[in-house]
Amino acid sequence: MIEETTITRAIAGKYMEKLLKSVESDVCIVGGGPSGLVAAYYLAKNGFDVSLFEKKLSLGGGIWGGGMMFNRVVVQGNALEILDDAGIEYEKYDDTHYVVDAIELASGLTYNAIKAGAAIFNLINVEDVMIRDDRMAGLVINWTAVEISNLHIDPMTVACKAVVDATGHDASVCNIVARKTGKLSLAGEKYMWAEKAEEAVVENTSEVYPGLFVTGMSVAAVYGLPRMGPIFGGMLLSGRKVAELVKEKLRY
Amino acid sequence: MIEETTITRAIAGKYMEKLLKSVESDVCIVGGGPSGLVAAYYLAKNGFDVSLFEKKLSLGGGIWGGGMMFNRVVVQGNALEILDDAGIEYEKYDDTHYVVDAIELASGLTYNAIKAGAAIFNLINVEDVMIRDDRMAGLVINWTAVEISNLHIDPMTVACKAVVDATGHDASVCNIVARKTGKLSLAGEKYMWAEKAEEAVVENTSEVYPGLFVTGMSVAAVYGLPRMGPIFGGMLLSGRKVAELVKEKLRY
Amino acid sequence: MIEETTITRAIAGKYMEKLLKSVESDVCIVGGGPSGLVAAYYLAKNGFDVSLFEKKLSLGGGIWGGGMMFNRVVVQGNALEILDDAGIEYEKYDDTHYVVDAIELASGLTYNAIKAGAAIFNLINVEDVMIRDDRMAGLVINWTAVEISNLHIDPMTVACKAVVDATGHDASVCNIVARKTGKLSLAGEKYMWAEKAEEAVVENTSEVYPGLFVTGMSVAAVYGLPRMGPIFGGMLLSGRKVAELVKEKLRY
Amino acid sequence: MIEETTITRAIAGKYMEKLLKSVESDVCIVGGGPSGLVAAYYLAKNGFDVSLFEKKLSLGGGIWGGGMMFNRVVVQGNALEILDDAGIEYEKYDDTHYVVDAIELASGLTYNAIKAGAAIFNLINVEDVMIRDDRMAGLVINWTAVEISNLHIDPMTVACKAVVDATGHDASVCNIVARKTGKLSLAGEKYMWAEKAEEAVVENTSEVYPGLFVTGMSVAAVYGLPRMGPIFGGMLLSGRKVAELVKEKLRY
Amino acid sequence: MIEETTITRAIAGKYMEKLLKSVESDVCIVGGGPSGLVAAYYLAKNGFDVSLFEKKLSLGGGIWGGGMMFNRVVVQGNALEILDDAGIEYEKYDDTHYVVDAIELASGLTYNAIKAGAAIFNLINVEDVMIRDDRMAGLVINWTAVEISNLHIDPMTVACKAVVDATGHDASVCNIVARKTGKLSLAGEKYMWAEKAEEAVVENTSEVYPGLFVTGMSVAAVYGLPRMGPIFGGMLLSGRKVAELVKEKLRY
Amino acid sequence: MIEETTITRAIAGKYMEKLLKSVESDVCIVGGGPSGLVAAYYLAKNGFDVSLFEKKLSLGGGIWGGGMMFNRVVVQGNALEILDDAGIEYEKYDDTHYVVDAIELASGLTYNAIKAGAAIFNLINVEDVMIRDDRMAGLVINWTAVEISNLHIDPMTVACKAVVDATGHDASVCNIVARKTGKLSLAGEKYMWAEKAEEAVVENTSEVYPGLFVTGMSVAAVYGLPRMGPIFGGMLLSGRKVAELVKEKLRY
Amino acid sequence: MIEETTITRAIAGKYMEKLLKSVESDVCIVGGGPSGLVAAYYLAKNGFDVSLFEKKLSLGGGIWGGGMMFNRVVVQGNALEILDDAGIEYEKYDDTHYVVDAIELASGLTYNAIKAGAAIFNLINVEDVMIRDDRMAGLVINWTAVEISNLHIDPMTVACKAVVDATGHDASVCNIVARKTGKLSLAGEKYMWAEKAEEAVVENTSEVYPGLFVTGMSVAAVYGLPRMGPIFGGMLLSGRKVAELVKEKLRY
Amino acid sequence: MIEETTITRAIAGKYMEKLLKSVESDVCIVGGGPSGLVAAYYLAKNGFDVSLFEKKLSLGGGIWGGGMMFNRVVVQGNALEILDDAGIEYEKYDDTHYVVDAIELASGLTYNAIKAGAAIFNLINVEDVMIRDDRMAGLVINWTAVEISNLHIDPMTVACKAVVDATGHDASVCNIVARKTGKLSLAGEKYMWAEKAEEAVVENTSEVYPGLFVTGMSVAAVYGLPRMGPIFGGMLLSGRKVAELVKEKLRY
Repeated sequence: MIEETTITRAIAGKYMEKLLKSVESDVCIVGGGPSGLVAAYYLAKNGFDVSLFEKKLSLGGGIWGGGMMFNRVVVQGNALEILDDAGIEYEKYDDTHYVVDAIELASGLTYNAIKAGAAIFNLINVEDVMIRDDRMAGLVINWTAVEISNLHIDPMTVACKAVVDATGHDASVCNIVARKTGKLSLAGEKYMWAEKAEEAVVENTSEVYPGLFVTGMSVAAVYGLPRMGPIFGGMLLSGRKVAELVKEKLRY
Repeated sequence: MIEETTITRAIAGKYMEKLLKSVESDVCIVGGGPSGLVAAYYLAKNGFDVSLFEKKLSLGGGIWGGGMMFNRVVVQGNALEILDDAGIEYEKYDDTHYVVDAIELASGLTYNAIKAGAAIFNLINVEDVMIRDDRMAGLVINWTAVEISNLHIDPMTVACKAVVDATGHDASVCNIVARKTGKLSLAGEKYMWAEKAEEAVVENTSEVYPGLFVTGMSVAAVYGLPRMGPIFGGMLLSGRKVAELVKEKLRY
Repeated sequence: MIEETTITRAIAGKYMEKLLKSVESDVCIVGGGPSGLVAAYYLAKNGFDVSLFEKKLSLGGGIWGGGMMFNRVVVQGNALEILDDAGIEYEKYDDTHYVVDAIELASGLTYNAIKAGAAIFNLINVEDVMIRDDRMAGLVINWTAVEISNLHIDPMTVACKAVVDATGHDASVCNIVARKTGKLSLAGEKYMWAEKAEEAVVENTSEVYPGLFVTGMSVAAVYGLPRMGPIFGGMLLSGRKVAELVKEKLRY
Repeated sequence: MIEETTITRAIAGKYMEKLLKSVESDVCIVGGGPSGLVAAYYLAKNGFDVSLFEKKLSLGGGIWGGGMMFNRVVVQGNALEILDDAGIEYEKYDDTHYVVDAIELASGLTYNAIKAGAAIFNLINVEDVMIRDDRMAGLVINWTAVEISNLHIDPMTVACKAVVDATGHDASVCNIVARKTGKLSLAGEKYMWAEKAEEAVVENTSEVYPGLFVTGMSVAAVYGLPRMGPIFGGMLLSGRKVAELVKEKLRY
Repeated sequence: MIEETTITRAIAGKYMEKLLKSVESDVCIVGGGPSGLVAAYYLAKNGFDVSLFEKKLSLGGGIWGGGMMFNRVVVQGNALEILDDAGIEYEKYDDTHYVVDAIELASGLTYNAIKAGAAIFNLINVEDVMIRDDRMAGLVINWTAVEISNLHIDPMTVACKAVVDATGHDASVCNIVARKTGKLSLAGEKYMWAEKAEEAVVENTSEVYPGLFVTGMSVAAVYGLPRMGPIFGGMLLSGRKVAELVKEKLRY
Repeated sequence: MIEETTITRAIAGKYMEKLLKSVESDVCIVGGGPSGLVAAYYLAKNGFDVSLFEKKLSLGGGIWGGGMMFNRVVVQGNALEILDDAGIEYEKYDDTHYVVDAIELASGLTYNAIKAGAAIFNLINVEDVMIRDDRMAGLVINWTAVEISNLHIDPMTVACKAVVDATGHDASVCNIVARKTGKLSLAGEKYMWAEKAEEAVVENTSEVYPGLFVTGMSVAAVYGLPRMGPIFGGMLLSGRKVAELVKEKLRY
Repeated sequence: MIEETTITRAIAGKYMEKLLKSVESDVCIVGGGPSGLVAAYYLAKNGFDVSLFEKKLSLGGGIWGGGMMFNRVVVQGNALEILDDAGIEYEKYDDTHYVVDAIELASGLTYNAIKAGAAIFNLINVEDVMIRDDRMAGLVINWTAVEISNLHIDPMTVACKAVVDATGHDASVCNIVARKTGKLSLAGEKYMWAEKAEEAVVENTSEVYPGLFVTGMSVAAVYGLPRMGPIFGGMLLSGRKVAELVKEKLRY
Repeated sequence: MIEETTITRAIAGKYMEKLLKSVESDVCIVGGGPSGLVAAYYLAKNGFDVSLFEKKLSLGGGIWGGGMMFNRVVVQGNALEILDDAGIEYEKYDDTHYVVDAIELASGLTYNAIKAGAAIFNLINVEDVMIRDDRMAGLVINWTAVEISNLHIDPMTVACKAVVDATGHDASVCNIVARKTGKLSLAGEKYMWAEKAEEAVVENTSEVYPGLFVTGMSVAAVYGLPRMGPIFGGMLLSGRKVAELVKEKLRY
C-alpha cells in the first residue's frame, strides 16, 4: 500500500475528530495574540474545553514584529509571573521594565496554550455570531482562504457557552454584536498612552454582553482606552483576568 | 519622563545589540521551517553562535497549515527522539506513523531553538551571498518589507563561517550560489514519493559548496529528490544531521 | 441543542466520509469540463470508483459561456447519443449541426455524472502526481483557495489505478509528468480547424504514459492537434472513448 | 465552405433569437442561486415566460461550495418534495435533517429549470431597473464582463410584468429600488439563527413593491431576518412560494 | 409599449445583422491604428467587403496621444494626398514636415473608413487564426472584455480571403502564424531611426504568408526595421499600399 | 542634422503654442462625450474660443460601445438635424427611431468639433475649479496619467468665462462646486426611463451656478432625472442647447 | 576581517545613535515638503533639537514635479530672502513672479535643513500621537514599508515639546488629534485661488492645539483656505513663520 | 487678470524652453543616482551641455534609503575630495571609512549638479536609443507616468554626442544597445564583494560602444563585477572618471 494514503487518512481523520469535538466547547476564544493565548492557557489548565480560532496561518498576532520590526518587546514587572508560568525568559532593563525576545514570547505562549490542552484552529475567520435568548451561543466560522480568494462559499457554526473577543484593535466580534443587536456600542481606541492604557485594559477586561468577554486591545476598542505600543504587561494580565471571569461565569 | 521613550530605547537598543553581535556569527541559517529550527536548536545547544534569518513574520514555515489546512502533521517513529528533546507530544497512528498537532510543532521547535540560544531574525530576506576564496563568507540581507514595498533600498551584510540553506523548495541560497559561481547546479525537486524522499533527504543532507550546507526540502531541490507531503520525520532528522556536519566542519 | 451544530456535524462528517473513501479510487479524473464529466459518467455507470477533481467552484468548464458569451453551443450528429443518454435537448440547425443550450449541457452533464455515482470534489487543485514503478499511482492535491491566497500550506495525496487528464488546453497533469519524468513530451495545440480537430481528438484519445489517459482538449495539447471552437461533438466522444480505454486497462 | 462559419452563425443567431424573445417576458428572475432556480422551475412549468439573469458564469450561486468548501449541504424534511420534483437524492441524517451532495443540488436545480422552459442568461449584470406608474416595468442589464473590465459601455433593457429578486445577501434589485424610489427600505440581515431564519424566510417571501418579489436570502436582507448557514430547506420553499405569489399576481 | 424595448431590439438586431454579414468578408483587417484605417478606407472605397477588428473601445490606436501626450503629430509631404482624401488639415512646419492635430487625424481616419463602407468591430480580440491549404482562411475572435475579465469562454470565428495585420509593434497576427505554422519568422523591431524607418516600412509592406499582409509598424516587427516616433507619413502610405496589394491579390 | 529632433521640436512647440493660447479661453468644456462634442462644435462654429478637456486618451465617451458592446446606437427623429450637420448617416428603424453606427457617431462628432475650430486636450483631468466673485473663473487641470500613476504632482490652471460640465453621470465639475461652495446641490440620477429622460435632459440644460452650465447626463445628475440607455437624441439636443445658452451669456 | 561587516556596523550603529538621540527632541516636524524643510532649517539654525519625519523615501514632497510634470515652480518676490538663505537661484518672470528649478528647490531646501543640523528620518510614517495633560507630548511612528506591506507590526514612540504638522493637504497629524480629542476640527481645503491662499496660509500659520502647530497646505486644510498651485512663496514664508512661533513657545 | 494664468504660462513656457534646448545636448546622462549626478556635476562644471534624465520623481536613486532603511552610508577615504567639492559632511569611522548622512548625500549631489549647470529632467523614461553610423546619436524618451498608466502613447527623441548609462543594476541603456545591435554583451552583476567591487567599478568605467559610456553599478552589470552594498566611494569616483572620459571624447 502507498504510504501517502496513510498520511492523508491520519491527518484528515485526526483533524476532523478535533473539529467535530470543538463543535461544542465551553469557551471559544477569537484571536491568537498575547491575550487570547494567555486566556486559552489558563482556561485549558483549569479543565475547560477551549477552542481558539485564529485568522492567520500562525499564532502570536502582533508579537512577532516587536516594535518597528525590531523583534524585542517590553513587559512590566507585575506580569513576570505569567512569563514564569510559560517558561519565557526576560532581561531586566530598569526597575519596572523587562525586555523579552518577541519570537520567544510568541512561540512560547502558543506552545504553552496547546500543551495546557486548548484546541487551536488557525486559518479560520469568524464571520458572524450566534445569539440565543440574548446570550452568546456560538460563532459562525469560515476558512480565511475563502475570504481572501473572494469565493462565494457558506460558513459553518460552532456552539459554546462563552466567547472571548481577543481580536485586538478591531474588536471584531464585539463589532458584529454591536451592529446586529444594537445592545453594545464601541467607543474606539484613543491615542497612545502606554502607562494609562496598561492599567485601564486590565481594569476594563470584562463581560460586555451576556456571554461575551473582551480582553487585550479589544478592551481598548470597546471602552475607548488609549492604545499601547510594544509593551505587553497589560495584555498578559488582561488575558489572565478574562480567564478568571469566564471561569466564574461558567461555574453557574 | 514619558514611559514610552523608555520602551523605545529598550527595544531599539536591545535589538541593535543583538544585530551587531550577529554581524559575525559561526553559522547563519537561512529559513525558519522545521529543518532550520532543528539545526538552530542543536547547534546553539552545542555552543555555536547561530543566527537564523526568516523571511516571514512568523517562524515555523510550512508546518502551521498541516495538510490542506487540516492542522495536523505526521512524524515517523525514527524521529520521535527529536520531538522528545523539544517536549512536543505525539499520538500513535500505526506502527510507523505518529500524529502531531501542527501548531504545537511549529511553536515548540521555535521556542526551543531560542531557549537553546539561537539568535532569530524574522522579516529578513537574504538577497545575495558573500564568497571569499571560494568559500561562503556571509550573507547579504534586507528587510522583507523593503522587497514587498518595492522600494529601492540597499541591503547590508553579515559574516559567518558556515551557511545552512534551509529555505525549502526554492533552495534559494543554493540558487544564488549556482547562478553567480557556476560551481553548483540544482537538479530540481521531483514528483511526490514520501517514503523514498524521507530517507533520501537525510542521506543527502551535506555540504554542497565550501561552507554551504543544505537541509530539509532544499536537499530535494539540489539533488533532484522526490517531494514529501505533510510528513516531517525526514525534515527533523535532516536538521539534526546538518547540525552534526556543521559542527564537524567548524571544529577545524 | 442548537440546530446549527447538527448541520456542521452532518456536513463535515459526510464530506470527510466521502473524502476518506476517495483516498483510494479506481480512477481519478482531473478537470470537470465536458470530456471529464462524460468520462466520469460512463466509468461510474460501469461500476468503477471514480473521483473527479475540479479546480473551480463550479463544474462544466468552458461550456457555460457558449461562444463569446452567447450561451449556445453546437454538437454534431454523431454525438447525439451521448446527449440522449444524459437527457439533454438539442435543436437541429442543418444536416450535421445541432444547437444546444450551454447551461443545459453544463448542468446536465454534471448532474448525470453524479447520479451515475462519481464522487466529485470541486475547489481542488492538482499540484503534483505520484508515480511508482513507472506507472501513475495517484495525485497530490490541495485546495484551490490555498493557491489563490498564496498561503504556504502542504498538499495531501490520493491514490488510484488510473488518471484521466481532462484539464483542457493546459493538459496540466501531462505537463507535470512530462517535466518530472522526461518520458512524455507535449506538442502544443495548433491553430483552429474545428472539423479536423473534432476527428483527431477522438482518434488520439489514448494512454500517454502508463496509467495516464488524455481526453478532450488535453489530447490536442499533447498531440499538437488544431483547436476547436464552441463545438462539442469531439469532446463528448473523446470522453466516452477514454472511459472505454480505462475500462479495458483496469480489467487486468 | 468553412464549417466554423456555420458554427458562428448557429450560435450567434440562436442566442440572439432567445435574447430578442426575452426582451419582453412575464417574469424576470435576478440571481441563479437555489431560490431563483426553484422559482424559475415552477413558474416555467406553469407556462410563464421566465427570463433568469445570473451575474456569474455558472448557475447555482452559493450551493457549490457546501459549508466551508465541504461540498455537502443539509435540507430539512419539509422541503424534500422539491428535491423529489427535481430528481435530487438525499441521505437521512436524523429525523429532520437530510444531507445532499452540493454539486448534485446546484446542477440538478439548474438542469431542471431549463428543462421546464426557463430562458437563462448567465454573465449578465442588472445595473438598474425600469419603473412605470409606480410599478416594476423591467430591468437594465449589461455584461458582467463590462463591469469587471471597467469599460464605459451603455446597458440595454428588458421589459417584464414581475421581477423576482433572488440575488441573495445583497438583495441588489431591492437596493436599487430603495435608493431610487425611497419607497422601500432594507432592514439588513441579522446574525445567524438557522432554525428561526428558515421559517421566517418562507413566511416573509412576498411582494415588497408593486411587481417586485423577494425570495431566499434577499428576504432576510429586506426584513432583517437572521442569516442561515449551509441549510437549504427554507431557500427551496421560499423559491416555490414566490412562484405561487407571482402566479397569483400575473393572473390579473 | 415601453420604448426601451424598441431600442434594445434595434441595437441588438442591427448589430447581429452586421456581425452575421461579416462572418464571411473579402478582407479582415486586424488593428484600427493609422495603417489599418487607411487600408480599410481604400479597400472599402474600391468595393471590397472589409471587416476591421479593433481590440480597444476606440479606434485610432497610438495616434491620440501624439508625442509624449502632446497631441500633435508630424506627417511628411509625400503623404499629404492621403490627408487630403480624408479631409484632414495640416500646417507646414518646414519643407518636408507638416504638423497635424492628433485628435483630428485619429477621428478623421476612423470617420472616413466607415463612410467608405468598412464594417468596424471594436472591443474584439483576435485570439487565433484559421488556415486551410496553407493559406489564411479566417480569424478566431473573442470579446476583449472576456480576456480582461479572465473568464474561460470560447471564441468564435470569421472567414475571409485576406487578412491584414495592422496590429502595430506586436504584429500579433503574424506572431500567431509564426508560432503555429513555423513558416514565418519575425525579426523584431530595431532602434529608432525615423527617416530610414519611414521609407523601409512602405517598401516592405507586403504579403508575408499566403493571404496574410502586413502594414504599418507590424512591417517593422516582421522585417526588423527601425521604429518610428510620432511621425505618420510612412504609416499612411503603408496603409494605402497594402490596400493596393490586397486588391491585386483578390482580383484572382 | 537628425530628423527626429525636428519632429520633437515641431510637436512640443506646436502643442505648447496651443496650450498657452488655451490658458485663457471663452469657454472650457469638460468631457468629450456626445453633448460636450456637440456643444464644442456649435460654439466654435460661432467664433468662440473653445477648449475641451477630456480625461481619457480618446474622445467620444460612452458612444463607442453602443449598447452592451453591440456598437450601434439609436437617435430619435428630432435630433437628425444635428447628425446632418455633422455628416453622420442613419438608418430608419421605425417612425421615431433611427439606428446609427456607434463608431461613426463617436468619430464624426469629434472630427467635426475640431474642424469647427475647438481646441481639444485629451489625457487631461479636471481636479478643481477657480471661482472669483461667486462666478466660475477657470479650471485646475492635471495629466490623467499623473492621477493613474498616483504621483504627487501639482496641477496648473486655465482661465475662462464659462464652463460647461459635460462629464456625464458624475457631473464631476458640479460636484466640486457643490462641495466647495455649498451653493449647489446634486439630486443624483434616477432609474432608467429613456423617453422621459430624453425630454427632461434638454429642458433642464441650463446654467446651474454663475458661469457653470450643465449638459447631457450631467443634467440628470444635477436635477435627479431618469437615466437613458444607448439612445442619443436628448444628448445631442442638450449639447446644442447649452451652446445657445453660453452664447447668450457671453454676449454681455 | 571582511570589510562589509565594518560597513554594516558603521551604518546600523550610527543610525541607531541618531534615532536614540531623537527619542526626545525639542520639535518634531512631520512631513518634508517645502514648509516642513524651511521650518526645520530655521529651527535647527536657532539651536533647537529638530527631528523631521518623512513618509516617503525622498524629501521635497510635491516640489519635484513642478506643475503637471513641467519641473519649474514659481516663487513670489516677498519670499526671495528664503531662497537667498538657501542659495537657490531664481529667474525673474515679471514684477512679482520668479521662476525656480523644481529640482534645485527640492534638493536645496533638503540639503540646507540637514546642514543646519536637523535630524531627518525618511521612510517613517506617523501613525498616532501622544498627548499628556492636553498637550502634545510626542509621536507614534512606524516604518512606511510596514504599512505598504500590510504587516501587523507595532509602532514605537518619540517624545517632543512641540509638533509641527507639515503634512500638506491631509493635515494628517491634525486629523488624528481632531478624531481622538474632539478638541480640533478641520474645515477642509477650498477651491484654488492662489493669490488669496498665499496670504492666508501665512496669516493662519499658528498653534492649533497646545503644542501642535500647522504650516503650509496643512493650514489650508485646518482653516478651510483655498488651495494653491505650483507657487511656493506662501509655503516658504509659512515654514519660516512656524519656526518663529515654535521658538516663542519653547522659550518658556 | 487672474494670477494663476501667469503661473501656468511661466511654468509651461520656461519648461518648454529648457526642453527644446535639451533636444540637442553634448551629453545625455541616464539615471540620477550617485554616479550620474557626479558625472553631471563635473561635466557641467567643465562647460558641457548636460541633460540628465531620471525615471523617478526624485533624484538620488538608491542613496536615500542608506542600508536597510538606516539612512546612513559609508564612503572611503579616497573619495572624500568629491564630498568636499560638493560641500557634504562626513564623520570618520576608522582609518578608511567615513559615515555620511544619506539624505545629505542625495540632496547635496543633486543640488550641486544643478548649480553647476546640468539640465535635469525627472519623470522621464528612456525607451530606446538612436544610433547613426554605429555611434550613439540620441535617446528615445517618454514620461514615466505613461509607462505606469499603461497608455499607448508615442515617445519623442533627443539628440546628443555622448550617452552615459548611469542606470545602475539594470544598465538599461546598455541592455537596449545590446539587444538591438548585437555588438555589446552584458556579463551581469556578481555576488557582493564590496572591496573588490569598489576598485573594479572605477577601473572598468569606460566607453562600451561608440559614444556610450558606463558608470556606477551599470559597470558591474556590463563587466560582471561583484555588487557593492551601501558604500559609495567607488560610485563617486566612477562618476568623476566617466566625466573625464566623456570630456576626452568630445574634445575631438
